[in-house]
Amino acid sequence: MQNFTYNNKTKIIFGKGTENQVGSETALYAKRILLHHSGGFAVRSGLIDKVKESLKNAGVEWVELTGVLPNPRLSLVRKGIEITRKEKLELILAVGGGSAIDSAKAIAFGSVHDCDVWEFFERRRSPEKSLPVGSIVTIPAAGSESSLSCVITNENGPWKRGVNSPFNRPVFAIMNPELTYSLPPYQSACGITDMMAHIMERYFTKEPNVELTDEFCEGALRTIIRNARKIFSGGENNYDARAEIMWAGTIAHNGFLDTGRIGDWASHAMDHELSALFDIAHGAGLAIMFPAWIKYNIKDGTPRFARFAAKVWGVDGAFYDLEQAALEGVMRMENFFRSIGMPVRFNEAGIDPSRIQEMAKRVVYFGSIGQYRKLTEKDAEAIYRLAAE
Amino acid sequence: MQNFTYNNKTKIIFGKGTENQVGSETALYAKRILLHHSGGFAVRSGLIDKVKESLKNAGVEWVELTGVLPNPRLSLVRKGIEITRKEKLELILAVGGGSAIDSAKAIAFGSVHDCDVWEFFERRRSPEKSLPVGSIVTIPAAGSESSLSCVITNENGPWKRGVNSPFNRPVFAIMNPELTYSLPPYQSACGITDMMAHIMERYFTKEPNVELTDEFCEGALRTIIRNARKIFSGGENNYDARAEIMWAGTIAHNGFLDTGRIGDWASHAMDHELSALFDIAHGAGLAIMFPAWIKYNIKDGTPRFARFAAKVWGVDGAFYDLEQAALEGVMRMENFFRSIGMPVRFNEAGIDPSRIQEMAKRVVYFGSIGQYRKLTEKDAEAIYRLAAE
Repeated sequence: MQNFTYNNKTKIIFGKGTENQVGSETALYAKRILLHHSGGFAVRSGLIDKVKESLKNAGVEWVELTGVLPNPRLSLVRKGIEITRKEKLELILAVGGGSAIDSAKAIAFGSVHDCDVWEFFERRRSPEKSLPVGSIVTIPAAGSESSLSCVITNENGPWKRGVNSPFNRPVFAIMNPELTYSLPPYQSACGITDMMAHIMERYFTKEPNVELTDEFCEGALRTIIRNARKIFSGGENNYDARAEIMWAGTIAHNGFLDTGRIGDWASHAMDHELSALFDIAHGAGLAIMFPAWIKYNIKDGTPRFARFAAKVWGVDGAFYDLEQAALEGVMRMENFFRSIGMPVRFNEAGIDPSRIQEMAKRVVYFGSIGQYRKLTEKDAEAIYRLAAE
Repeated sequence: MQNFTYNNKTKIIFGKGTENQVGSETALYAKRILLHHSGGFAVRSGLIDKVKESLKNAGVEWVELTGVLPNPRLSLVRKGIEITRKEKLELILAVGGGSAIDSAKAIAFGSVHDCDVWEFFERRRSPEKSLPVGSIVTIPAAGSESSLSCVITNENGPWKRGVNSPFNRPVFAIMNPELTYSLPPYQSACGITDMMAHIMERYFTKEPNVELTDEFCEGALRTIIRNARKIFSGGENNYDARAEIMWAGTIAHNGFLDTGRIGDWASHAMDHELSALFDIAHGAGLAIMFPAWIKYNIKDGTPRFARFAAKVWGVDGAFYDLEQAALEGVMRMENFFRSIGMPVRFNEAGIDPSRIQEMAKRVVYFGSIGQYRKLTEKDAEAIYRLAAE
C-alpha cells in the first residue's frame, strides 16, 4: 500500500428538499455570486426559480451566466472569468451536472490568476488559489461536486483537457435524488457509465494489498449495477435507487476509492479524444473504451481481471481458466452497458474509424498514458481498433 | 434512505515516515501547543523525541502533559484546560490512541468555554467552538482521529460519558502503520474489536435501502477480519495488514458508514457501564456486549442478522432457516473474538454479575438506549444476563 494524503472538505448536503438550503449555505461564503447553468431543463423545471428565491431570502445577489454545454467550452469559461472579475463576484454556483460544475471550477480558479486560463490545461501552470465553488447536482455522473478534477474543451483545436488540483474541491454540494427523476434515460445511462468508469480506473492497479479499497470499489460497482437495473426497469421515480446511484457517483470520484494506490486513467484519456473529435457524451465514449482497454491488457495480470469478473459480475470459475473468467466478465459488462442503451463499439456511436491514427497520436500528446501499463501511441491505436471491431 | 449531511475536514496523512511531517503540519495552525500523551511507550520507543525534533524544526513550541490512561480521566482533562488557558496554547496535539485523542478533544473545547467541562458530558451544553486538535495515531481502534466523538471518564462516580460535536473533528491525523508493529496483542485485539463494533453499530439499522453503505460496512468488516487473522498468525510486522487495519479503523468512525441512516449504539452504551465500573478495556467490553445484543434482538428483523452472517462471516443457508443462519453468524463472531484473545462472556473478563441490575439502571440514565430497538432498563438487564451466561 502506498502512502497517501486524503483531505476532502466538500460538505455534502444530501436528500429531499435540500435545494432549498442553497441560499443559507452560499451566504456562509459570499454576498455576490455567479449563478452558472445550461439555461435548459433546470429553468423549465422551475429549479432555477427555487434557487433564486433561496438566494434572495439569504441576501445573496447573483449574476447569471447560462449556456453550459456537455463537454463544456473554453469560450464560456473565458466569458465567466471576465464577468466574475468585472462584477467582483465571490463564489461560483453551478446548477447542473459535471459540465456546469467543471465550467464553474475553471471560472473560479481562472478569475483569480492573471494568465489565460488555458495555460493551466496546457500544464504550463498549476492553480495556487481559487474562488469557492458550490453546486446543486442534477445529473449524477462526473462526481465533480467533490472531486479535484476539471475538464474543459477548447473548441479551437478541438482539445479536451483536464486540470487536477486540491483548489478544485467545491465547498458544498447539494444533492436531491428527486431532481434526477426526469433525466432522459440516455443521460442516466451516460452518468452511470461515467461513475463506473471512475471506479474502474481506480480499481485496475498493480499495487498489491489495498484490500479495503478493493472491497469498497467492488461494493460500489455492485450497488450501481443493481440500482441501475431498477431504474431501467420502470424505476425512474424510485427514490432509493436514484439516491444510491447519486451518492455512489460522488464517492466514485471523491478520492476515497484510490487511497493507497494510483489509478490508471488511460480509458478516460482515450475517451477524451473521442469526445473532442466527435462530441459524443463522455459516458458513451467510456462504455466503448473500457471493454477494449480490458481486452487489450487481459494477459497482463489476469487474476486481477478475473477477480473483477467474479466480484462485480458474479462470474464463477475463479479456479478454472482465469482468462476465460475475465473475458466472461467483460462480456457481461458490455451486455450491461447495452442493456441501459450505451454503445460499446464505434459503429454503435457513429464514430468514423478512419481517424484512429489521428486519435492515437493526439492521446499521447503529454507522453504515455495509463499506470496499469504505460501505453504508447501504438498501444492506443490497437485499443481503438479493438473498440472499432 | 434518510437525508444526511456529510462533512469531514480531517486531513489524513497516511504511510511510512509520516510522523516526521508533524512539525510542518502543526505550524499551519499554531506556534504554541499542548503535547499530550501517556508518557509510556511513545516515550520509550523514541517517537516523542522524533515529534519534538519535528516541532522544533518547524518553530513550534510546546508544553507537555503526560499521564493519559485508557478510559481517559476527567481530572487530567481539567489539568490540561488549566495549562492551555494559562499558557495561551493554540492547538492540542495528541500522540497515542483514542484515549489520548479524546482527552485532547475535551481539553480543546473545554478551554475555550467558560463553564466546567463536565457540563458538556452531562448534556447541559454543547460545544460552540474548539481549539484545533491534531494527532499522531499509535493505536488503531477508536477512530477518534477523524470522528466527532469524545468519551471521558469522571472518576467521581464513576461515569463514562461522550460528547459528539462537529467541533470535535481534528484538523489532521498522522498515521504510520509501522508505529503499530509493537502493540501488545491484547491491545491490537481490543482495537480490532472496537472498530468492528463501530461498523456494526452503524450496520444494524431498520432503515431500508442503504445498499451502498451496507456494501461498504460488509467490505470493511471482511477486510478487518482477514487482516486481523494475518496479524495474529505471525504477521505483527506485516505492513500491509497493519495498514488495512489502521485505515479501516478511521473509516469505521469517520461518519462515512452511516450516511443515509441512524446507527444503534446500544452495545456501546452498555459497554460504557462495564468500563466505568470495572475499568476493562473498551474493546473487551464490546466483544462481550455485541454478541449478547444480537442474540437478544435476533427475532426482530431476522433477515438483517442473517445477511450479516452471510456477507461478513460466510454463513450459507440464507434460503433455509434464517434465524439459524443468523445464530451461526454470532457464533463465528464469538469464535473470531476468542481467537484474537478477547473475552466474550462476563466470567472471561472477571466481571461480577451481581452488579447487573445496577448497570442496567445506570445505562438508561438519559432514557432508553439504541435505535434498532429502543431498549429499556429491563431489556438492558436481559442483555447483560445473556452476556453473563
